[in-house]
Amino acid sequence: MISNSLPIDAALRTRAQRVIPGGMYGHLNVARLPPGYPQFFARAEGATLWDVDGNAYVDFMCAYGPMVLGYGNREVDEAAAAQRALGDVLTGPSERLVELAEKLVGLVAHADWALFQRNGTDATTLSVVIARAATGKRKILVARGAYHGSAPWCTPHPVGTTAEDRVHLVPYDYNDVESLTAAARSVEGDLAGVIVSAFKHDYGKDQELPTQAFARAVRALCDESGAALILDDVRAGFRLHLGGSWETVGVRPDLAAYSKAIANGYTLAAVTGSDRLRDAAASVFMTGSFWCGAASMAAALKTLEIFERDDCIATMARLGQRFRDGLAAQAKANGLVLRQTGPAQMPQVLFADDPDVEKGRLFAVEALRGGAWIHPQHNMFLSAAHTEADIDRALQATDGAMAAVAKSFGRD
Amino acid sequence: MISNSLPIDAALRTRAQRVIPGGMYGHLNVARLPPGYPQFFARAEGATLWDVDGNAYVDFMCAYGPMVLGYGNREVDEAAAAQRALGDVLTGPSERLVELAEKLVGLVAHADWALFQRNGTDATTLSVVIARAATGKRKILVARGAYHGSAPWCTPHPVGTTAEDRVHLVPYDYNDVESLTAAARSVEGDLAGVIVSAFKHDYGKDQELPTQAFARAVRALCDESGAALILDDVRAGFRLHLGGSWETVGVRPDLAAYSKAIANGYTLAAVTGSDRLRDAAASVFMTGSFWCGAASMAAALKTLEIFERDDCIATMARLGQRFRDGLAAQAKANGLVLRQTGPAQMPQVLFADDPDVEKGRLFAVEALRGGAWIHPQHNMFLSAAHTEADIDRALQATDGAMAAVAKSFGRD
Repeated sequence: MISNSLPIDAALRTRAQRVIPGGMYGHLNVARLPPGYPQFFARAEGATLWDVDGNAYVDFMCAYGPMVLGYGNREVDEAAAAQRALGDVLTGPSERLVELAEKLVGLVAHADWALFQRNGTDATTLSVVIARAATGKRKILVARGAYHGSAPWCTPHPVGTTAEDRVHLVPYDYNDVESLTAAARSVEGDLAGVIVSAFKHDYGKDQELPTQAFARAVRALCDESGAALILDDVRAGFRLHLGGSWETVGVRPDLAAYSKAIANGYTLAAVTGSDRLRDAAASVFMTGSFWCGAASMAAALKTLEIFERDDCIATMARLGQRFRDGLAAQAKANGLVLRQTGPAQMPQVLFADDPDVEKGRLFAVEALRGGAWIHPQHNMFLSAAHTEADIDRALQATDGAMAAVAKSFGRD
Repeated sequence: MISNSLPIDAALRTRAQRVIPGGMYGHLNVARLPPGYPQFFARAEGATLWDVDGNAYVDFMCAYGPMVLGYGNREVDEAAAAQRALGDVLTGPSERLVELAEKLVGLVAHADWALFQRNGTDATTLSVVIARAATGKRKILVARGAYHGSAPWCTPHPVGTTAEDRVHLVPYDYNDVESLTAAARSVEGDLAGVIVSAFKHDYGKDQELPTQAFARAVRALCDESGAALILDDVRAGFRLHLGGSWETVGVRPDLAAYSKAIANGYTLAAVTGSDRLRDAAASVFMTGSFWCGAASMAAALKTLEIFERDDCIATMARLGQRFRDGLAAQAKANGLVLRQTGPAQMPQVLFADDPDVEKGRLFAVEALRGGAWIHPQHNMFLSAAHTEADIDRALQATDGAMAAVAKSFGRD
C-alpha cells in the first residue's frame, strides 16, 4: 500500500515550479492524471519503479514504451558500456552503425536500408520528407486523432504552430477505406504519402487493430499513385512483430519509423525503407549532433538479439493476456463492464459508460495506491521483464481498485 | 604519418553502401571532404581519435562540438553511469531534471527556467514555437546562411520540404542593422521572434563575432515589438561564456537553445527562457520518449560543474590561440595568407584567394595524413582535453601541409 502523501515528491514539485514552466512538460507531466501520481522517480529495476518517496510500483507504462527488456537490463547495459568505453558520439560513426543497419535490413521485412535519429518524431518527420523528395508531391494523408510526434506539423496541441505547418496534411479515418479513398481523391496528382500507425492507439480511445481490407487498400492506393506508405511503428515496433507490425496483416510499407523499444531505453530512432525510396533518402539532409552515437546502437544490437533469442513478444503477449484476463474476471465479479482493446502486450483498459473517465481515473489511482502504475487513458505497455508474480501483484492492487469503482459508481 | 589506404574503412564503406542510402547521411558524411578522410572510427580518448584502420588523429572537430572535456572523460562517465544504475529513461523524470534546470537558471544570465530535449534542432524549433505562442504572431527573422538545425523549416538543403515550411521566415544579414530593421518593417505587426546565432559561423565563410551595435539593435527591436530574441547557442554554448554567448556583448536573449557541449557528448538539448516567456513555454506541447532521460542530465550536471571548476573556456581559448599562432607562423614562413576568424576555441581556418577551397582541401587532407583531423570549411572546435602536446603534434602535421599548399599553389 502506497502512502497517500508523497512529501519528497511534493518538495521536488515546488522546486520544479520555479525552474520549469508549469512544473513539468510533455507526456510525462502528471498534471492530467488524478492527484496521487508521483511526478518524480528515484530508481527502477526489472518492471518495478520506485518513486522518490520510496514506494514501489509494478510499471505498466514501461517509460511509455522504451523499456521492453526491463530497467537496468544487464546484457544491454553491458553492451552499451563496452561501446562507450571505446567511443560514443565521435567525429564520425563507428562500425556499429553499419552493423545495426544490416541487422534491421535482415530483420524488418520491407527494409533494404536504414537511417538513424534520436527521437520518434525525427523518424516520422524524416519519413515524410523522404516521401516528398521521392514523389515531388506535397500531400500526406494522416488518420484523424493519430499521434505521430510533437513537431509543429504533427503535435496534437498546436499552440505556437502556424496553419501552414499542417496545410499539406489530409485527414482520413483509420480502418475506413472509404474515407481513405475520398481523402486521396481530394488531392489527386499531389499525393506524396500515407502515414499509418501500426494500429489505432489514440489517446483515450478504444484501440483497433488494422483490418486486412484497410491495410490492403492503403497499399493499393500507394501502388497506384506512387505515394509512399509510411508505417509509424514508433510506439508498437518490436512489440507486435519483429519483421514490422504490419507483417501481422501481410502488408509491407515503403518506409517505417522506429524508436521507443528499439534499444531498451537508450536514445535512438530509425527509419527503414525499401529500394524504391533509397535515392530519395540519400538526397535529403536531416542530421543531428548525436545521431551516430555508438553506445545506443550497441544497445539496440543487443536488444534486437535478445528479442530474437528469447521470443520476447510471446512473453509480453502472454503476460498481457494474464493481466487482461485477471482484470476481466475482477470486472465481472464487481458487475462492471471493461473495454479491453488492442494487443494484450499494449493494453488499453477503459470502462464502459465512462464518458468523463471518472471510473477510469478512480480505478487507476486506486491501483496506483495498491502498487500498480496504471494509466487511465493511454495505452499501456508490457515488457519481457514483467513476471507472473508482477502481474499477480498488480492484480491484487486492481482487485481493490475495481471494488472501489463498483462502490462509488454502482454496477453497470 | 597516416597510411594512404584505409582498407578496413573501405570495406565498411562497401557494406554501408548496401544498407544506408548513399553510404552515409548528414554532417558526418565525409563525401564532401577530400578523398583520404576515414569515414569510420574505432575509438577515442582525450582529444585523440583512432580510425578503424588504427590511425590516430588529434581531433579538431570534437564530434562537431559535443566533446568538450575529452572523449571518455572519467568524471562525466562515472556520473552518468551512477545515474544509469539507478534509472535513466523511466515513466517519469528523476530529481536530476530539477537539479539541472536549477543549475542552468543559476548559470545562464537570462534564464528563469529550462526545458530539455534531445537534439539541437528540437531546441531551436521549440524556441520558435514558444515565441509564436507568446506573441500570437508568425514571422521569424533568420540570418541568411545561418544554420539552425535540419528540420524542414531550417534545413540548409530543402529537398523534400515544402514552400510552406519556410513561409514565415524573413531573412536578414548578420551584423547588419539596416537589413534587420528592413526585415522587421516588412512584417510589422506579425513579428514573433528574431533568431540569432551566438556569432556568425556559416559553413565555408569567415566567422564574425556579433557587433555590439547589432546585438543591441536586435534587443531594441524585440523590446519595441514584443518579439522574442532567440539566441541559438547550440554550437557555441559553453565555449564562449558560461552565462550565455551574448554575455560577451552584454545583451540578453529571451530564449536560448543549447545542445552539443552541454553534456560532453551525452544526448541532450535545452531551451532556457526568461519569465516573460514562461507561460507560453508552459502552454506548448513538444515532447519525446527520451527527453527526461536522467543519465544525460547527470552527465550535464557534472559537465557544467567541471566547466566552472576548471575554467575550461580559458583553457580552450589558450590552446586555440596556440594553434592559431602556430598556423599563422607557418603560413607566413610559406608565403601564404590565412583568414583565421572567430573565437580561437572555435577556429575557422581559410586561405586567402581560395574560391574553390582547393588550397584548403589540400591543406586539410595533408594535415590529416600527418595526424590532425582538420576541416577545410566548417569551423573547428577545441576542447579542454586538448594538451599543448596535442597542439604541437598537430602543428607538426600542418607544417608539412602548409608547405604542400605553397608548393602546389605558389606563394600568395
